[in-house]
Amino acid sequence: MKKKSLQNDSALHISKGKVVDSNINKNFKRKKRKRPDLKTFVDGICRGDRVLLSQAITLIESKNLAHQALAQKIIEACLPYSGNSLRIGLTGTPGVGKSTFVDSFGSYILKEGVNGLAVLAIDPSSQVTKGSILGDKTRMETLSVHPKVFIRPSPAGDSLGGVARKTRESIILCEAAGFDTIIVETVGVGQSETAVHSMVDFFLLLLLPNAGDELQGIKRGVMEMADLIAINKADGAALPAAKLAKKQCRNGLHLFPPKESNWIATAELCSALKHEGLDTIWKHILSYQNQTSINGYFEHNRQRQAKYWLEESIGAQLKQLFYQSPAVRAVFDQLEQEVVHGKLSPFKAAENLMQLFKEQ
Amino acid sequence: MKKKSLQNDSALHISKGKVVDSNINKNFKRKKRKRPDLKTFVDGICRGDRVLLSQAITLIESKNLAHQALAQKIIEACLPYSGNSLRIGLTGTPGVGKSTFVDSFGSYILKEGVNGLAVLAIDPSSQVTKGSILGDKTRMETLSVHPKVFIRPSPAGDSLGGVARKTRESIILCEAAGFDTIIVETVGVGQSETAVHSMVDFFLLLLLPNAGDELQGIKRGVMEMADLIAINKADGAALPAAKLAKKQCRNGLHLFPPKESNWIATAELCSALKHEGLDTIWKHILSYQNQTSINGYFEHNRQRQAKYWLEESIGAQLKQLFYQSPAVRAVFDQLEQEVVHGKLSPFKAAENLMQLFKEQ
Repeated sequence: MKKKSLQNDSALHISKGKVVDSNINKNFKRKKRKRPDLKTFVDGICRGDRVLLSQAITLIESKNLAHQALAQKIIEACLPYSGNSLRIGLTGTPGVGKSTFVDSFGSYILKEGVNGLAVLAIDPSSQVTKGSILGDKTRMETLSVHPKVFIRPSPAGDSLGGVARKTRESIILCEAAGFDTIIVETVGVGQSETAVHSMVDFFLLLLLPNAGDELQGIKRGVMEMADLIAINKADGAALPAAKLAKKQCRNGLHLFPPKESNWIATAELCSALKHEGLDTIWKHILSYQNQTSINGYFEHNRQRQAKYWLEESIGAQLKQLFYQSPAVRAVFDQLEQEVVHGKLSPFKAAENLMQLFKEQ
Repeated sequence: MKKKSLQNDSALHISKGKVVDSNINKNFKRKKRKRPDLKTFVDGICRGDRVLLSQAITLIESKNLAHQALAQKIIEACLPYSGNSLRIGLTGTPGVGKSTFVDSFGSYILKEGVNGLAVLAIDPSSQVTKGSILGDKTRMETLSVHPKVFIRPSPAGDSLGGVARKTRESIILCEAAGFDTIIVETVGVGQSETAVHSMVDFFLLLLLPNAGDELQGIKRGVMEMADLIAINKADGAALPAAKLAKKQCRNGLHLFPPKESNWIATAELCSALKHEGLDTIWKHILSYQNQTSINGYFEHNRQRQAKYWLEESIGAQLKQLFYQSPAVRAVFDQLEQEVVHGKLSPFKAAENLMQLFKEQ
């Protein structure tokens, strides 16, 4: 034990040394580049300044409370200039070719008249994988050097709720900066699809041609969220399998009840690598936008999403207040074990905890 | 305005008059039948006394705080004697024949050795429909007079969360009273399936033979929860359609990823009216119980459900505390409207509300 503690101490010294070094560097940098004030940020973002947009998103992602406070002010000031975009959610299992798809599809829609494309990501696993999606921008060869494109990888090291909130706030800033199309990408392996679904207008699911096996990897409910399924890599020898997959998906989609948007989800083929089928996908998305704008669902959905995020924010902050309160923390684990082993009813345990929470 | 207020006043007088009358009646009744004490309740329930079980559930459902407090004590005292049952969730759209199915299936499994069957219901809509499910016990001709059966309609006039909690607590009392099989019934048209799914071991979905149309009425996600789909009314002229429905359902179920329980859901035919196919359904349920007991999922799932209900109870009580606080209520509607119309970000609004909540 003693040896371990000594090792920890020396590690601490080294890390302390590093902190000092980096602080010196930071101070040095700060002198060279002073942080812009609120007005500079807001004016710059609304003028479409990428550097300021990027810096503002860094503030959103920062753990520093002063940064977070400034970020909130920037968001509030940009809010009146946000909202004028089409938000597209994109998901699919690793290996389906999401980066290639975004590169190819993004280039296509820019040619079709899109004014500015922002690509954001929600990947709560990126803490571990160091950002498996969008982390490697070089995969998006065309978009990463396109003047009308802004790409931002997923913020790392946070819970899904935290990552989702930051991405949602980044959308606001991107819209204020004039990007009229936002793609929010996520990996199709967790709860993150629900988060993405709750902040986009249209939800696109990418699948591989071997749909039978493929669907096994898709999380429950994700297929039901899709407004369109695109079978990617539908070229060459994979074409027959892709066609079968399309048929299977269309049959599967039939089993779901109609969407509130009245939009009928379907499946299409594409090959991002060969730039095939992208026009059909874009037509579906525009048709969705048109149809839901006319029937009022587009705006209705956005308002509902705003209410949902208000509730989510309240719920998250309430839980934080509760679970971090010393009185609750002191007894929570013990009470939870009693509940799990049938010695205390969940409601009674909650009541006891709530009493401690209120009394403190 | 004045006239309206006058009308309200006179309505109040009338209602006050009624309140007084009913209080007199209550006091009169109370003298005739004294409420049993805690020990009498617990001893009686554990002895299998139906009258005391039924009275205890009435206490669970009561709005009276003294009743609720006594109910919680009874539940805590019964908790050590609960858990030894197989909990079956049952859902299906209105008209699928749930009551007939429970009557027919319940009678069958009682002949097969089930020791005691409790039938409970979750129907948050019953406030409006006055209990469309189980409300009319006469539909269960056989069970309603069976000595080993206890039937309890859904508690009325409450939110889904409230109804679900009361049903879950009723399960505990029924188990303590020796019922080894519990059927929790719900209508297949709302969020209530998720609540039922989170308190049962096995989830059975009843469908009509016209599955194509039928599935349109089933709420998203319900089919994925099913451990077994039973196509009811599969007799006479409907048999060909039912067979087709079975095939469609089996194909549909294939599209879902494997369950954590490793159980493979399937579809079967039955006719509750003609007592056909009930043996196959019961075999599936027993096989599920056997398989998940061996692989540990049965207990794992129960423990997870207990944790889930602890979280749910905490969340519900936290929200109640928050949304009922005068400081929050004073400004909530206004802030929500600002959020919905994009004038305030959800996070900022939540933060403002949280500040008011903490300061009060």
